[in-house]
Amino acid sequence: MKRLSLIAWSLLVGCTLTFAQTSRVDKDKTAIRAVLDSQAAAWNRGDVEGYMSGYDRSPNTEFVGGDTITRGWQAVLDQYKKRYDTREKMGTLTFSDLEITVLSNDAALVLGRWRLQRANDQPHGTFTLLFRRTKSGWKIVHDHSSAA
Amino acid sequence: MKRLSLIAWSLLVGCTLTFAQTSRVDKDKTAIRAVLDSQAAAWNRGDVEGYMSGYDRSPNTEFVGGDTITRGWQAVLDQYKKRYDTREKMGTLTFSDLEITVLSNDAALVLGRWRLQRANDQPHGTFTLLFRRTKSGWKIVHDHSSAA
Repeated sequence: MKRLSLIAWSLLVGCTLTFAQTSRVDKDKTAIRAVLDSQAAAWNRGDVEGYMSGYDRSPNTEFVGGDTITRGWQAVLDQYKKRYDTREKMGTLTFSDLEITVLSNDAALVLGRWRLQRANDQPHGTFTLLFRRTKSGWKIVHDHSSAA
Repeated sequence: MKRLSLIAWSLLVGCTLTFAQTSRVDKDKTAIRAVLDSQAAAWNRGDVEGYMSGYDRSPNTEFVGGDTITRGWQAVLDQYKKRYDTREKMGTLTFSDLEITVLSNDAALVLGRWRLQRANDQPHGTFTLLFRRTKSGWKIVHDHSSAA
């Protein structure tokens, strides 16, 4: 009887821990999805700074594309502002096919697709993001984006 | 006196733990660098399968470039074999500017540059790799590569 209750107890603790972990991972994924949703919403009202609040405001934040590595939140913002200096160029942004892998308590990788709907073209491609949990919540610290 | 030795003891334990962690991270970085060195060496002797041993032999391994997401170790190998079907096309591969960030006990992100020295051109670009610690050591599970 003692042994049976020990087994039952271990099972209960095991299940509770697994459940707690699954629930934590789900919570993290939801939080990360919310950051991306909020970025797209900001972009689509022409608010580049709002879009940039998805990135960690740090000199270590990196944006990688083609042969170029841009370092620092401010430099990434400047690059976006230069490249998308009119509402027409910004177009309407959508993210799709998001695959979020939580790697640890404070790191997650996101693979996804981006698309800009514009008057005359539809630039699109893929991205790999590294999110870290910061004091201000989950933020992008590394963005590697490609265009078709 | 008792209090002093408690402080000394805590400092000793703290320093030992920090040292152990730093040393573990350094060991992981060395192991990851070795995988990349071994990949370049395999490539440069025309051994694409040897190069591919740096990737996790899993259906979940991903290669991302441009607008394309290739899934599965075998599909990534097939793509490399198709794209680099002669020794001339393979050229001489070098990796440089490696920045390895160990994210947890079993995950690390690597940012770097790649370059192929060939008879008539020098394709080059950047890559973001996610390494996971597997039963067979550190392996690439996600590769996002861009060309200049």
